Amino acid sequence: MTAFEITPAGARAALGGLLGSGPLDDDAVVRRHALVVWNTLAEPGDSTAGELIAELGPEDALREAARGGREGATRAPRSIGGAEFARAVARWRPRMDDTVVAASIAAARRHRVRLLVAGDPEWPAQLNDLGPHAPLCLWVRGEPGALARLNPSVAIVGARAATGYGEHVAMELAAELAGRGIPIVSGAAYGIDGMAHRAALSAGGLTVALLAGGVERPYPSGHADLIDRIAQSGAVVSEVPCGSSPTKWRFLMRNRLIAALGSATVVVEAGWRSGSLNTAGHAAALSRPLGAVPGPVTSAASAGCHRLLREFDAQCVTGAEDVRELLGLEPQWRPHPSDLDAESGGHPRTDDRARIRDALSTRTWRDAEDLARRSGMAHAEVEALLGLLQLEGEIERGPVGWRLSL
Amino acid sequence: MTAFEITPAGARAALGGLLGSGPLDDDAVVRRHALVVWNTLAEPGDSTAGELIAELGPEDALREAARGGREGATRAPRSIGGAEFARAVARWRPRMDDTVVAASIAAARRHRVRLLVAGDPEWPAQLNDLGPHAPLCLWVRGEPGALARLNPSVAIVGARAATGYGEHVAMELAAELAGRGIPIVSGAAYGIDGMAHRAALSAGGLTVALLAGGVERPYPSGHADLIDRIAQSGAVVSEVPCGSSPTKWRFLMRNRLIAALGSATVVVEAGWRSGSLNTAGHAAALSRPLGAVPGPVTSAASAGCHRLLREFDAQCVTGAEDVRELLGLEPQWRPHPSDLDAESGGHPRTDDRARIRDALSTRTWRDAEDLARRSGMAHAEVEALLGLLQLEGEIERGPVGWRLSL
Repeated sequence: MTAFEITPAGARAALGGLLGSGPLDDDAVVRRHALVVWNTLAEPGDSTAGELIAELGPEDALREAARGGREGATRAPRSIGGAEFARAVARWRPRMDDTVVAASIAAARRHRVRLLVAGDPEWPAQLNDLGPHAPLCLWVRGEPGALARLNPSVAIVGARAATGYGEHVAMELAAELAGRGIPIVSGAAYGIDGMAHRAALSAGGLTVALLAGGVERPYPSGHADLIDRIAQSGAVVSEVPCGSSPTKWRFLMRNRLIAALGSATVVVEAGWRSGSLNTAGHAAALSRPLGAVPGPVTSAASAGCHRLLREFDAQCVTGAEDVRELLGLEPQWRPHPSDLDAESGGHPRTDDRARIRDALSTRTWRDAEDLARRSGMAHAEVEALLGLLQLEGEIERGPVGWRLSL
Repeated sequence: MTAFEITPAGARAALGGLLGSGPLDDDAVVRRHALVVWNTLAEPGDSTAGELIAELGPEDALREAARGGREGATRAPRSIGGAEFARAVARWRPRMDDTVVAASIAAARRHRVRLLVAGDPEWPAQLNDLGPHAPLCLWVRGEPGALARLNPSVAIVGARAATGYGEHVAMELAAELAGRGIPIVSGAAYGIDGMAHRAALSAGGLTVALLAGGVERPYPSGHADLIDRIAQSGAVVSEVPCGSSPTKWRFLMRNRLIAALGSATVVVEAGWRSGSLNTAGHAAALSRPLGAVPGPVTSAASAGCHRLLREFDAQCVTGAEDVRELLGLEPQWRPHPSDLDAESGGHPRTDDRARIRDALSTRTWRDAEDLARRSGMAHAEVEALLGLLQLEGEIERGPVGWRLSL
């Protein structure tokens, strides 16, 4: 690091296209650049950095860190002990290099990666639950706005070495939930994660992948196509800057972001010591609802799930309805509540309408007979309500039946 | 019923071989006979009968019931409302027939069925938790003493329409537990019940079957051989007298006995509306620990188990160790604690001895290498301790290794 005095003009020039969606004043630009610098100094989850920045702001914190590095840790910030500060400075000092910051920004631009920092309109508020462990920046391929639509959402995670059973269940859960407007958050790994993303995409739903390394290099490389597709309709996100490799530590820290972004976490299959249990642990620590899909007790791939049921008091999840319950969603919950009631005045949403709506899917066409069976209503009633809902644009008619409009 | 005045001599003559294990005074013989009469009048779980008997004793209760029957319910006992008493008398009256009592006693004698009533030394005390719903009599084929050895024990129950998976798990659980000295209680039905009994027998353990009808007629008839084998080494028990058919009501009531006799109940496989959930409900009502074995969420045969995990707060059971935990048994628990420590004075049961003992089975011969692996101890340590344990008669050596002495 050669220059710790960040000027507004210098920061504007350095950040270029990474200035966010709205106009920024000089202070905000300087703060943004200081956070990007911090993002190269501190590893994910570095709470000393988080506390220092919270106390002094990123720019002064940077100055303080540089001074600590140059003169020895003679003056620790108020909230941080002298020894802790000295250890932290010793961690940060080797990375104080302007060229690394410049290279990560250049790579981000080259790959059309967007930058979010806390305070940006698209910044997902639920990350603030992480306190001093919250990420400093999010690097986003795809639509940063997707991150603001994750409340509610479900993190579906699990073993890379999944079985056919686990992949089948992950697919069913993700398709049903994403198809009904509940976004799926996962880690783009082989096995359960990949299946959850794929099913969400197939259902036309929103899905967001959190990577452990820089978002410009898809990992695992065998999922490069899948990760591209996630970025096209949703978002691929990392808290580490472009050029960062996915280290073991970053995987563990990435897991806390999955747990924090998901309104609930569901583990589909996990071995006894699976990394998914780490994600589950983060979810529990954040008081997010935690679910686990049971499987045969004879299957090692379900041992971690059973451990979550036994030791972590996870809820037993057998299907999408259980996940909706885990999220605390009413059966009639819908992603974008229309203001139909208020507007029309005369068409209150009766229970019967809710029952038909529950029987419909956004994904699968269902005929009136099927809907009558699913809703437990008479065929004639169903027909009448379908006509009404179609008039109101809530549902659409296809060649073989009806489905909810997206 | 022709004579409600039971005389000691008459009762002794009527009961014959059903007088129990010790000498009985006249009052006890009369009480015993009165309970047998009640046993033909009242269906299992008839709490009015239970309360009446608790208040007046079986003999006076019988007199009161007969008077109610003859003169109308003019004088209800203190604790029972007049209307309730009248309804109960109306239920009992059609059965007031001495010849039915005599026939059931004759059938019991013919089939060498033993009779237990509350207060007999072999009467299992845990049935008293049922309060006024406790059985009046137990009719036992096999060894009545087996019933006094069910604390602790495990009720393993489940679907008749079990899958191969469920039967496999039931077998593993029952063999491991019964082989380690924990008796298995079940209902002798096809599927899970039958497999649990069979595995307990194969492991040389104790198993007890509760039938819904008279014990002299094995039900289901396809399990007649199995039920015979259970009676040979353990006990086959019913609360209804010989000659009673297994009605639906009696199945439901039989389930409460399984739940009450087992120190814990484990459901291995159960459909959404399986009768095993009834047993589980009784266990929960009795505050007995309740476990459920998970399975694939795609298997209808596990749906009831998942329901228990979700709705009844059942513990997730993945193996015998989890059941021992459910029972609150320490890992080093053994069925018949030897007084070795007190006697020898110089051989305290060290942790290492417990670890070796845990690694041993009563069923399977295991060699020192296997035991070293299971116990996490050095091979030489294992060898030394095995020699010691053999000297003390705790273990025996076979052609291929060692096992716990029974």
